[in-house]
Amino acid sequence: MLDMKLEVFIGAMKSVLHGDASRIALHEPNFNGREWEYVKQCIDTGWVSSVGSFVDRFERDLAEFTGAKYAVAVVNGTAALHVCLKLVGVEQGDEVLVPTLTFIATANAVSYCGATPHFVDSETSTLGLDPVKLESYLEQIADVRADGCYNRISGRRIKAVVPMHTFGHPVDLDPLVELCGRFKIELIEDAAESLGSYYKGRHTGNLGRVSALSFNGNKIITTGGGGAILTNDQALCKLAKHLTTTAKVPHKWSFSHDMVGYNYRLPNINAALGCAQLERMPDFLRTKRALAQAYQDAFSGIEGARIQSEPEHSTSNYWLNALLLDRSLAHLRDDFLAATNDAGTMTRPAWTLMHQLKIFDNCPRMHDLGIAEDIERRLVNLPSSAKLGEALV
Amino acid sequence: MLDMKLEVFIGAMKSVLHGDASRIALHEPNFNGREWEYVKQCIDTGWVSSVGSFVDRFERDLAEFTGAKYAVAVVNGTAALHVCLKLVGVEQGDEVLVPTLTFIATANAVSYCGATPHFVDSETSTLGLDPVKLESYLEQIADVRADGCYNRISGRRIKAVVPMHTFGHPVDLDPLVELCGRFKIELIEDAAESLGSYYKGRHTGNLGRVSALSFNGNKIITTGGGGAILTNDQALCKLAKHLTTTAKVPHKWSFSHDMVGYNYRLPNINAALGCAQLERMPDFLRTKRALAQAYQDAFSGIEGARIQSEPEHSTSNYWLNALLLDRSLAHLRDDFLAATNDAGTMTRPAWTLMHQLKIFDNCPRMHDLGIAEDIERRLVNLPSSAKLGEALV
Repeated sequence: MLDMKLEVFIGAMKSVLHGDASRIALHEPNFNGREWEYVKQCIDTGWVSSVGSFVDRFERDLAEFTGAKYAVAVVNGTAALHVCLKLVGVEQGDEVLVPTLTFIATANAVSYCGATPHFVDSETSTLGLDPVKLESYLEQIADVRADGCYNRISGRRIKAVVPMHTFGHPVDLDPLVELCGRFKIELIEDAAESLGSYYKGRHTGNLGRVSALSFNGNKIITTGGGGAILTNDQALCKLAKHLTTTAKVPHKWSFSHDMVGYNYRLPNINAALGCAQLERMPDFLRTKRALAQAYQDAFSGIEGARIQSEPEHSTSNYWLNALLLDRSLAHLRDDFLAATNDAGTMTRPAWTLMHQLKIFDNCPRMHDLGIAEDIERRLVNLPSSAKLGEALV
Repeated sequence: MLDMKLEVFIGAMKSVLHGDASRIALHEPNFNGREWEYVKQCIDTGWVSSVGSFVDRFERDLAEFTGAKYAVAVVNGTAALHVCLKLVGVEQGDEVLVPTLTFIATANAVSYCGATPHFVDSETSTLGLDPVKLESYLEQIADVRADGCYNRISGRRIKAVVPMHTFGHPVDLDPLVELCGRFKIELIEDAAESLGSYYKGRHTGNLGRVSALSFNGNKIITTGGGGAILTNDQALCKLAKHLTTTAKVPHKWSFSHDMVGYNYRLPNINAALGCAQLERMPDFLRTKRALAQAYQDAFSGIEGARIQSEPEHSTSNYWLNALLLDRSLAHLRDDFLAATNDAGTMTRPAWTLMHQLKIFDNCPRMHDLGIAEDIERRLVNLPSSAKLGEALV
């Protein structure tokens, strides 16, 4: 028999979800726009691959939407992160600060560079990296030299920090920008989850020197698989384009390459999907905001749990709604997950924290990662597809 | 004024090319099958990304077509090569033997592993790796120990060899298999260009422990961007699937990962394209073979150049036809390229040889790479799209 409190929580969630509650995805794509039309153009013209106009258009549209000067479309968000790290000069043997509460791509991309992820804690208001805690941590362990920031304990250079905007909620970026300047650390925003999220009126991805977006199937817009690099620096945009297209030296016919590059270019057919999806963003943001509000309302009178709301100064895309159980009820998390998933309503916990994965056992980390641990123990993501909010607007 | 010989060569090429000779691609996709139907199914159901039935079907269809027991679809051929190297255990500090005459992906994939490409020569009959020359080279430099093959000069382990089936022509695999067994070197076939090519009746990609395919836009079939890993080893197939899907540990809702994996899974919408394209392979192989025959015929009476034909014991897919000028006429190569490309007929030279790229300056190589250098100086690829052969069957 279900705990009574659990029944109340599930009831509140269900009151928001219209339609067939026995098959509700966590976040599914919505293709009611010009997706067919654009994809068919690719197939009819034969331009599905590395040549074709939708890649250029998608990059222009993304730049316009985000306010970043430049966007470079790539094959997925992981590839975007990998190239971002390369762009700011992360090298073999460096350390890169990443939140322990993140999807594994953030940490994996660091490993691909031969660098070591160094795990830091989150704050409750954003679920993302805590700049205040990071500041006092760096004051303890960092040694700022002419050529960069060094970890006094490991002796390695700390080259970059990669805050991730968790579930679409922007990290508090201003103090982080200040911190990075002072400690000579490069700022990369992992904006994989935050397309359509704004920090103090500016779209996320504009404060990092470079930033990464994702258009995986579960994201607010999808290209099948896809991602992008954002930057306001023309030289970095050029280098990003070069690195993601095998570093081929431009020539009418000959094949020569001047760097070890990557085959990370987004195919045109996937970019076509992206162009159509991006046209729908205002709708998606509106319905997703309505859904978030409905969750807030449904849980507002209920003791023992709350819905995470956008941080002060920020407008969130509410990519994934997050229910936070009270600490005293954290033991109900797995029962909630089991009961809802067994009934066909997809919910999920936060990712296993990076510092708790065996593969990162030897990576440096803050002594105290208590906030992330606390969040992870009692958080559940609720179904958040844009279409679930359609009846609410 | 064009050299008279050059005019004869261009005339022979043109005699084969029907249609508007002012806009002829080197190799373009052909979508006259069920491409639209399958892609539309993805968009209508919303299954465009990492979930969906076309990925499973494409993998089954590829296994059936190639005769390999298992196929794992990935995001492109470079990703396939990278994972193949990981699968056979290539590690940081190893050396991997690769032909100097290849597309840069073969060598780049080695670099991604932190290993060093070691360049070897080609033979004239296949354009690919020369197993006889490799044998005498290994007898000079290799030291076979209990735990593998070591390069006596560099001290590094030689873990694998990656023959590439150039333009679809299969490398002479039998002696290579024997050699690999004797020297304890893993065999990976770079079959990016050879889908539909057979070595002694067996589809390429079956003799290596693992092999890589590519479905880039210029290949015999395309998925926009895509690739696959082939293997006859169930354990390696399982590991390939795991490594290419972020090494996530299967669980209904929780996110845990037990290796540093990759986000290399092929999106479902691209796999849908692949399923439709694979249905067309018999047609493509027939028309491409007719085109190759027409080039052979057109150049058969002409002194000073010849069309590369499939090696003995092999059936080639004739992915790209190759014109080989006589050594005495190698100086005409660039004039041929300029004249044809300026007139709108795309032709191209072989890739700049890997050992001639500055980025690989410090990589080991055979002293004598004379055959590859000779081929590179006088080879030109001619337009080879399947549709160019349609009028000829």
